[in-house]
Amino acid sequence: MSVMRAVCFLSDYGYADDFAGTCRGVIKRLAPDVHVIDISHGIARHDVLGGAFVLRNTLPYMPDGAVHLAVVDPMVGWQRRAIALRSASGRLFVGPDNGLLTLAAGVDGGVAGARELTNEALWLKPLSETFHGRDIFAPVAARLAAGLPFEEAGREIEPASLVMLELPPPKRTRHGLRAQAVLIDRFGNIALNLDQEELQRAKLGERIELVCAGERYLAQVARTFASVRPSDIVLLIDSYGQAALAVNTGSARDVLSLSPGDMVELRRLEEPGGPG
Amino acid sequence: MSVMRAVCFLSDYGYADDFAGTCRGVIKRLAPDVHVIDISHGIARHDVLGGAFVLRNTLPYMPDGAVHLAVVDPMVGWQRRAIALRSASGRLFVGPDNGLLTLAAGVDGGVAGARELTNEALWLKPLSETFHGRDIFAPVAARLAAGLPFEEAGREIEPASLVMLELPPPKRTRHGLRAQAVLIDRFGNIALNLDQEELQRAKLGERIELVCAGERYLAQVARTFASVRPSDIVLLIDSYGQAALAVNTGSARDVLSLSPGDMVELRRLEEPGGPG
Amino acid sequence: MSVMRAVCFLSDYGYADDFAGTCRGVIKRLAPDVHVIDISHGIARHDVLGGAFVLRNTLPYMPDGAVHLAVVDPMVGWQRRAIALRSASGRLFVGPDNGLLTLAAGVDGGVAGARELTNEALWLKPLSETFHGRDIFAPVAARLAAGLPFEEAGREIEPASLVMLELPPPKRTRHGLRAQAVLIDRFGNIALNLDQEELQRAKLGERIELVCAGERYLAQVARTFASVRPSDIVLLIDSYGQAALAVNTGSARDVLSLSPGDMVELRRLEEPGGPG
Repeated sequence: MSVMRAVCFLSDYGYADDFAGTCRGVIKRLAPDVHVIDISHGIARHDVLGGAFVLRNTLPYMPDGAVHLAVVDPMVGWQRRAIALRSASGRLFVGPDNGLLTLAAGVDGGVAGARELTNEALWLKPLSETFHGRDIFAPVAARLAAGLPFEEAGREIEPASLVMLELPPPKRTRHGLRAQAVLIDRFGNIALNLDQEELQRAKLGERIELVCAGERYLAQVARTFASVRPSDIVLLIDSYGQAALAVNTGSARDVLSLSPGDMVELRRLEEPGGPG
Repeated sequence: MSVMRAVCFLSDYGYADDFAGTCRGVIKRLAPDVHVIDISHGIARHDVLGGAFVLRNTLPYMPDGAVHLAVVDPMVGWQRRAIALRSASGRLFVGPDNGLLTLAAGVDGGVAGARELTNEALWLKPLSETFHGRDIFAPVAARLAAGLPFEEAGREIEPASLVMLELPPPKRTRHGLRAQAVLIDRFGNIALNLDQEELQRAKLGERIELVCAGERYLAQVARTFASVRPSDIVLLIDSYGQAALAVNTGSARDVLSLSPGDMVELRRLEEPGGPG
Repeated sequence: MSVMRAVCFLSDYGYADDFAGTCRGVIKRLAPDVHVIDISHGIARHDVLGGAFVLRNTLPYMPDGAVHLAVVDPMVGWQRRAIALRSASGRLFVGPDNGLLTLAAGVDGGVAGARELTNEALWLKPLSETFHGRDIFAPVAARLAAGLPFEEAGREIEPASLVMLELPPPKRTRHGLRAQAVLIDRFGNIALNLDQEELQRAKLGERIELVCAGERYLAQVARTFASVRPSDIVLLIDSYGQAALAVNTGSARDVLSLSPGDMVELRRLEEPGGPG
């Protein structure tokens, strides 16, 4: 048994190119006995919000004390810092300071320490303009996993100075709740920024109306998408504990034309009745 | 050298989402020194037959004594048991009781022991409705790989009670053989449920006629697809020992419009001759 | 700490099928403690030139002394040798003798030893017609990684007899340079067979004209694609030190209609001026 940490690696590098593989090589070159666990490299290109959610959701399933290397970095090389965070629970996070890491650190006890990656001795040389995953993030993650003290990653920075994701909490409306689409999987299931407790408090009932982009749809609240008829829309709690929209044997993304970041209102259906 | 078993992991989870990566995290969290070998996560969504064939075909190439974790699970959560099997050769299999595991166990000496995964102490909590790969199958596989006795996975069940795939054997016809398409790779090569010995017994000759969905095609029996002209159809024995249809520099799937489960008849060509 | 070498694995096997996973299984079956690092399996089908470039580019980022297993093998089974190379720097390379390995070995100090894989005792039996990655290359790579002496891979061959890629060096023209497109990533960035030094010697200036397939385009020479306006074409040095064509927020492949192997001329723009 080793005292090394695992490196859990998430990115938007995709699978067609060598980007993720080259970072794996850098880690194993610097820290041969460190285990690399690929969480996913299928985050949509430059989707910082989606990457932040996957990082947060998968956190409890990864080894305790792991180093989470996350790279979704549209601003590579300009106007964003490279950072390492330590959560109160002892996990480490390495990546860009664009909000990608803070959701996960937030649910892991909060940020207990933050460093800007200013220790250039840890970087690969020459430093490229565009591949900081390879040249900065992977080598720092590898060395932290192999035992480098967190403090040596670079100069201390204020947790309050970190870039946070603009993520509006679900909002009560006259008819129900307004929530945000945050993550869409390959089946077209749409995870919302809304958890089970918030959903229950809204007392929406078993049949609801969805309003998005001016269009209205009927949907059912159920435990699984198999609880409704094929092609019906269902609002359920997904396997990560988030409210999600799905279509039985279909794609909620296609039916509702929602993209990450879009808003959707979940409305109680009026009881039918009254004079006609 | 450790006495641990490797976990060989196959699923239809794809690569866009975190599903396979999260299961890898679960395994490494529970059994840090266990090696995870990803066989494939590209099984077509819900294609139990295709997954069962890949699991069976790849078996001899995986480490002896491995735990084979396989998840293609259209019925997740309803009306199917979660199981572990032990083959006569000592491999372990973990997955849903829908036929996915039994082809492989069958060629590995047969099922020597079967358990339903009823030991809830091994599962992750809370148990989700839809992600039993993460919550049941991966943790049980991890613990078996780390040395948990097979018997502790859950209650014993009768091998005879296991769900078997409905897989009609190739059938002799008046003109040749009728076989089933079972697996189509990304190049459009179509593996049939027909092995070399059965093919040879049918004495089809070097040129044959294919009949599928009422259409007829000429094909050649050859050792490699490079033995025939570009665009010609060839019947060969593939690298897993199965008869397969291929098109040189083309796609047999596109030419023949076959899908997994479809039947195709391989007919001897009549000798040309006679008056006329 | 082990004295084993890592196996760095690159292929055009893709992710839909089990091909790469089966080779991983073969390696771990024969050498359980060897680490497998997947560089990429997304090389375009049969693109030997692209595979050779990725293998060469990623080399310095992989562990020292690794075994590089590379399989892009359009001629599998006919008219090409299976080989292992040892570079002057001590890395080993295993794959087909079609040029795939020689670019990488060339930048790693040159070929210090070459063997044809004639030691059939190392192969899997039965040998398939079409899957030599599984049956020859992976088992030889596994055994070399586990300590098999290089000489036991097979009979010695002359480095001068190795197949080399036909790769015309960039050529000075009256107006600038003619270069070749060698590798296109999933964002449509086009790497050229032209390095920074060659580019600087050509003194093209900051604005240039591209000529490909008879069409002309304006482009800027800049450090990053973010230095130019959206939709503008830029010539930059990419993260592997190669000159590359990119389009800010777009795809150079789509704009320029270039494919790997195509030629492109980079021309100095005439100074505006004169009567008129």
